[in-house]
Amino acid sequence: MEMSWEQSVTYSINTVYLLFSAYLVFVMQLGFAMLCAGSVRAKNAMNIMLTNVVDAVVGSISYYLFGFAFAFGDTSNPFIGTNFFALKDIPNTSFDYSFFLYQWAFAIAVAGITSGSIAERTQFSAYLVFSFFLSGFVYPVVAHWVWSSSGWLSASSTNPLFASGAIDFAGSGVVHMVGAVAGFWGALIEGPRVGRFDAFGKPVPMRGHNATLVVLGTFLLWFGWFGFNPGSFDKILVAYPSTTNQVVEPWAAIVCGFFSAWVLIGLNIVVMKLNFDDPLEATQLHGGCGAC
Amino acid sequence: MEMSWEQSVTYSINTVYLLFSAYLVFVMQLGFAMLCAGSVRAKNAMNIMLTNVVDAVVGSISYYLFGFAFAFGDTSNPFIGTNFFALKDIPNTSFDYSFFLYQWAFAIAVAGITSGSIAERTQFSAYLVFSFFLSGFVYPVVAHWVWSSSGWLSASSTNPLFASGAIDFAGSGVVHMVGAVAGFWGALIEGPRVGRFDAFGKPVPMRGHNATLVVLGTFLLWFGWFGFNPGSFDKILVAYPSTTNQVVEPWAAIVCGFFSAWVLIGLNIVVMKLNFDDPLEATQLHGGCGAC
Amino acid sequence: MEMSWEQSVTYSINTVYLLFSAYLVFVMQLGFAMLCAGSVRAKNAMNIMLTNVVDAVVGSISYYLFGFAFAFGDTSNPFIGTNFFALKDIPNTSFDYSFFLYQWAFAIAVAGITSGSIAERTQFSAYLVFSFFLSGFVYPVVAHWVWSSSGWLSASSTNPLFASGAIDFAGSGVVHMVGAVAGFWGALIEGPRVGRFDAFGKPVPMRGHNATLVVLGTFLLWFGWFGFNPGSFDKILVAYPSTTNQVVEPWAAIVCGFFSAWVLIGLNIVVMKLNFDDPLEATQLHGGCGAC
Repeated sequence: MEMSWEQSVTYSINTVYLLFSAYLVFVMQLGFAMLCAGSVRAKNAMNIMLTNVVDAVVGSISYYLFGFAFAFGDTSNPFIGTNFFALKDIPNTSFDYSFFLYQWAFAIAVAGITSGSIAERTQFSAYLVFSFFLSGFVYPVVAHWVWSSSGWLSASSTNPLFASGAIDFAGSGVVHMVGAVAGFWGALIEGPRVGRFDAFGKPVPMRGHNATLVVLGTFLLWFGWFGFNPGSFDKILVAYPSTTNQVVEPWAAIVCGFFSAWVLIGLNIVVMKLNFDDPLEATQLHGGCGAC
Repeated sequence: MEMSWEQSVTYSINTVYLLFSAYLVFVMQLGFAMLCAGSVRAKNAMNIMLTNVVDAVVGSISYYLFGFAFAFGDTSNPFIGTNFFALKDIPNTSFDYSFFLYQWAFAIAVAGITSGSIAERTQFSAYLVFSFFLSGFVYPVVAHWVWSSSGWLSASSTNPLFASGAIDFAGSGVVHMVGAVAGFWGALIEGPRVGRFDAFGKPVPMRGHNATLVVLGTFLLWFGWFGFNPGSFDKILVAYPSTTNQVVEPWAAIVCGFFSAWVLIGLNIVVMKLNFDDPLEATQLHGGCGAC
Repeated sequence: MEMSWEQSVTYSINTVYLLFSAYLVFVMQLGFAMLCAGSVRAKNAMNIMLTNVVDAVVGSISYYLFGFAFAFGDTSNPFIGTNFFALKDIPNTSFDYSFFLYQWAFAIAVAGITSGSIAERTQFSAYLVFSFFLSGFVYPVVAHWVWSSSGWLSASSTNPLFASGAIDFAGSGVVHMVGAVAGFWGALIEGPRVGRFDAFGKPVPMRGHNATLVVLGTFLLWFGWFGFNPGSFDKILVAYPSTTNQVVEPWAAIVCGFFSAWVLIGLNIVVMKLNFDDPLEATQLHGGCGAC
């Protein structure tokens, strides 16, 4: 591909921005591992950390082989993409490896959300199959619906609002919702941890074993979030950069955060009544607050 | 705001640089949390880590609501800024959200410095009020004096040396000095930890409980420092980029570091004599060495 | 140095890319520290973490004073560079501090590889001398052979393939090979840890004390790798950016990784037979797989 000087500059700036954002999103995998490890009992810390390593390794292979194709294959099917398997024949002009890397980091983050919901009672080999399937099929198909220009939930790609508004909102929606729904069904099917509710259905506290790891994980997720959300403006150098900062007014974000906290507290009370056990509260958090 | 192609390129490069520098400065918050947690006794680790989370959460709200306005309000008062509360009416041409984010990361780092000085003997609720006040008022006012173009300690903004020299030096000075002074008074008023000095005033060692966390925190602070200091050149694409690297010669930095170590050792001996107890040595380090 | 607008843009983009890549490579130091600390017995965790701090501190001084000069001194000696000691007289047009920072991060990573091989049986003061020598002399000389345009192993700098192909491959080769060879000799000379092999030469498992630290270190190394390898394209804005992504096809990397795992497993069996003890398997990993 021949590029003019201007195209080359635009490409380089956007690539630097996208690459480092992708690296930050990857840090979330470490954040999940530490948060989960600290939130479970000591005997299960190793198991749950391994699930996060598996997310990153198995999820990478399946997203590379199938997931990216299902999500961003450019055939006009509104439900699923059908080309670009193993990145074969991707067009240099619209996609590149930075874009793939960024999307990959999102795909493995979805599995990271889920791993918390099914903590302390999931076989390692079962999780391996689950992770392969989630990153390689479930998440990519939903992503195709919303993000692919041919997806049935996608805004029209010719709409100028699309680039700065709908796509980012959807970004969070897809990841949080797929993670939360997968976690919800996982936690529901597996049932609560042994001893989590007594004979009368009353919850028995099961404390995590290491608060330091929880704080470490929390800050690492926050650090990774800087790649996740601001990075979703996947081009920083566009015609009108001043508009890209105007998605949500800061005061609205604070109000929204305030209500989200109450949503989470409320949902936690509801799920306790229903004897639903999500060790990391991931279903409530990502499902309830992600939908707000 | 309409931008030319050249303005757009400049804006984009500087924004990428500033954003990722801000993310790194944010990592310091995690570094402080880990360093402090490892440096105190096990029973107090949770408390001090929470103070670092509070710095980031409460400090964010107060810096957003008041702090940024006090620091960078553009009315010509040399002591304190009086507009831009809650980022209202900030002019797109001279400020933007990246600049705010970077300044915010500095503001919460000041509180992070202080939290070490008053470790192991500060009520959580008291710290909450302190953190709100420090990030929302004390630090911003001092920052206004030095960094705002109308500040009484500020170099004239028309001076070409200002952009590459004075502002950066001041950068470190403001943060380290405010942190050290706040920590000094906190540690002095609260007095030493129970059992830190025996009946004859002789110091009794109180070891941190986890060296791994200390090393983890140290490296994370070092990593964050890459955003803190090199990032202080808040524009990387200026007319003469070759000058921005010439603030301090490397050999001078090494000599300076060598003497700083002796300053710290000396100050530690002095404060022991005075029965002053700063669990993280933050007052001595940031006050003594920051002044060098 | 006077720069045109185009030169200034190119310089700025490349500097941002190189700086943040260097910061990520620096994170590997923290990754090594955590991985090593978790992989050794509790009593030796402090010692090995200190070696990683020393790598970063002592290695910095020796690489600044001697190492960079030996590696990139531009006199036409094919074996060793002989100018630019303490960065004296480096030409602004071909080198700058970002380049130095990036190379420094590589130099201390080599020592990080080695520190694992000689874990649990190396005196701190001996390691200090070793680290000074490795970062200041051994690694830089090998780097000069491959990377300096006058090096005897270097491709001709006028060859257009050089910039995108040979230099990157070599990049990994130099770092991994120097680290592995140094670690091999260190582990061989020091002999296995006391109790590692019984009277009949059969290996006795010596487990690390903290799996959480191992996972933490692994992810941090992965995070740092994003700076190490993609960052090795030390200019992101060149005439034909689309070629810089084509060094290795992804499917080839997966196949290569698959075989590397078997190489590592095989080498681990061989070294057990030979009663060679590398606590972190660093010699086998970096020597065997780095050579593939």
